[in-house]
Amino acid sequence: MKFSERVLAMQSSPVRRLLPYAEEARAKGKKIYPLNIGQPDIKTPESFLKAIKDFSQEVIAYATSQGNNDLRDAISRYYKEFNIPFDREDLIVTNGGSEALLFAFMTMCDPGDEVLIPEPFYANYNAFAQSVNVKVVPITTKAEEGFHLPPKEQVDALVTPRTRAILVANPGNPTGTIYTRDEMDMLASLALEHNLYIVADEVYREFVYDGLKYTSFGHLPEILDRVVVVDSVSKRYSACGARIGCIACKNKDFMAQVLKIAQGRLCVPTLEQVGATALYSTPKSYLEEVNKEYQSRRDTLYAALKKMPGVICSEPKGAFYVMVKLPVDDAEKFIIWMLQNFDVDGETVMASAGEGFYATPGLGKQEFRLAYVLKNEELVKAMDILKLALEAYPGRIEPVAAR
Amino acid sequence: MKFSERVLAMQSSPVRRLLPYAEEARAKGKKIYPLNIGQPDIKTPESFLKAIKDFSQEVIAYATSQGNNDLRDAISRYYKEFNIPFDREDLIVTNGGSEALLFAFMTMCDPGDEVLIPEPFYANYNAFAQSVNVKVVPITTKAEEGFHLPPKEQVDALVTPRTRAILVANPGNPTGTIYTRDEMDMLASLALEHNLYIVADEVYREFVYDGLKYTSFGHLPEILDRVVVVDSVSKRYSACGARIGCIACKNKDFMAQVLKIAQGRLCVPTLEQVGATALYSTPKSYLEEVNKEYQSRRDTLYAALKKMPGVICSEPKGAFYVMVKLPVDDAEKFIIWMLQNFDVDGETVMASAGEGFYATPGLGKQEFRLAYVLKNEELVKAMDILKLALEAYPGRIEPVAAR
Repeated sequence: MKFSERVLAMQSSPVRRLLPYAEEARAKGKKIYPLNIGQPDIKTPESFLKAIKDFSQEVIAYATSQGNNDLRDAISRYYKEFNIPFDREDLIVTNGGSEALLFAFMTMCDPGDEVLIPEPFYANYNAFAQSVNVKVVPITTKAEEGFHLPPKEQVDALVTPRTRAILVANPGNPTGTIYTRDEMDMLASLALEHNLYIVADEVYREFVYDGLKYTSFGHLPEILDRVVVVDSVSKRYSACGARIGCIACKNKDFMAQVLKIAQGRLCVPTLEQVGATALYSTPKSYLEEVNKEYQSRRDTLYAALKKMPGVICSEPKGAFYVMVKLPVDDAEKFIIWMLQNFDVDGETVMASAGEGFYATPGLGKQEFRLAYVLKNEELVKAMDILKLALEAYPGRIEPVAAR
Repeated sequence: MKFSERVLAMQSSPVRRLLPYAEEARAKGKKIYPLNIGQPDIKTPESFLKAIKDFSQEVIAYATSQGNNDLRDAISRYYKEFNIPFDREDLIVTNGGSEALLFAFMTMCDPGDEVLIPEPFYANYNAFAQSVNVKVVPITTKAEEGFHLPPKEQVDALVTPRTRAILVANPGNPTGTIYTRDEMDMLASLALEHNLYIVADEVYREFVYDGLKYTSFGHLPEILDRVVVVDSVSKRYSACGARIGCIACKNKDFMAQVLKIAQGRLCVPTLEQVGATALYSTPKSYLEEVNKEYQSRRDTLYAALKKMPGVICSEPKGAFYVMVKLPVDDAEKFIIWMLQNFDVDGETVMASAGEGFYATPGLGKQEFRLAYVLKNEELVKAMDILKLALEAYPGRIEPVAAR
């Protein structure tokens, strides 16, 4: 049987495709520190399950396509605490941030249209884009520069008549980078000059460290008609398995188009929306404690990485990832080698290979992404193992220019 | 801001776009019999909520992209009771049947590729197809012929080099038609001759009346490598709001391609999968009772419709819909008129306009779909109101040929 070109062109998820090696290692009794996936170990607020357990309707019925009013009101109140002016009708509830991104691509782009995305980027952007024939045009950023954006001229040169949007994750996954206000203004001015949308993936909004001031693309009034925010409860409330996200935009015509797609798939699960509504009433202290915890983990991880010879990374300022350049021939081979051939007292480490986070062929081959989603004690052990693994790995190469 | 051609070409859901008129009518105190949407009033088995209430993990974590093993095993056992040979690895859990259809289109078709679908069909097929630039080529069927398929030559003439699949809902929505074994064999032989997939939407598998023997496309061994079954718990267990479906296929290469798309959107909600697993242990007696209830409702509805002068419809043999041809100028106008200008003692009826279930322009203008998802007493009242409405409607036209 024939398969479509679009699906054949799709890569397996770099975060998930090495899982069989991990399963094999676990089957042999190895303990693995899973730093490959952004699955936090933080407890989901109890309000989520409590609200669902209080649900007492006898029929688990369809919800409305745009999402429950209670949930949309709760999300609207949440935004307004951030001075982001989204009202209920500016929001459609989605199956995680994933579906919000898919809807954005479908609404903005026809096959062959282009979206600019700073690379490295969240690998699934590729999957969504390819599944609907949208061309990803990477804005290359570098580990050595903390993955900050190149000057405006360089981004401007990438715009073509087919460019429809600039998609940015801020804070960044896999980079942990927070864009400066100047960078955001630069993107905003490009969007205005070329009539582009800005798709702002802000699912890590609360994960900003070192007292940095966080600016949302929803804070820039001059582009509010063209900013589409992608959001999710997954990381904010450690509720990845709830799959509740939203797409938000002040442009009513845009939201009317999105609603047509949302109606096609009927609705998002009724119970998850009940749970998510409760999550948005979680006291701010929860988010503050989670932030502190991640900042401390970031410190642990970064301090350990800095001490490893030949390793290049910038201090991540947000999210809970760090993109690390390694003194190895091939980061994916190195990860597989750690799972198959290496352990310290029966323990090893898993990461996500970097190449899948780039659109430019060949980039990221020496990089991997670590998610600091484990407790500090475990991160310390994992970093000790990583250090020894890098020393023992047969494919180690000495970097041309040490940092 | 610009919108994509694909989203601009998309129609609003015919099932959902008249909801504002219903809201307005309700706000004025009218009672509406909602026969427009396939939202059953049947109780969801209590096992669904019970299983979720027993869930005690502290972190609501991601599930695997292919779906929980427990759930896939439960679905596999369910299929085997029907002698449909799907094993765990032949199944990927999806966000309702909706996502299964979207994945099928993405995996089979590039933009401009064609899928043959007997019309009238489930209106959202259009939304999925347009969102990924798949061209729907209708196989027209008629109310007067019980919506059965035309002869093989007529279907064969619709196949082009771009045809990739034939999509059929069996039992049919909105028609209630059950295809004969001869019709299924005809489609199977076309699929073999032209190397096409068969996408079989079988979400109403249990809703077959009058003791008819049900045949699944999974029962035809000669085409098992090209049959893709789309399924869902929504109607089977009256759990529409759970949004749990699956895509099933014995072709391992096909499922490997689908998995790449599934990994892109990470997973389906964890708790809904726990609940759905329990649903698949529901005793068969539940399904038998539900079947009896719907058969009785079908009888009530059909008997009443047959008595209305100028109304044309065949007795539906499955699902819980009937597509009705009316002696009116425009069925959508008639529905809006019922909501705005008509009532019997403050009560009126809502249906879904037929045009949206056709791909051929102009067809279905005089038809509407009724979903018999209310109790018999309510259906009787609703049909009394409909009869009076048809008599009073200013746009009534006498049919050219009475039945």
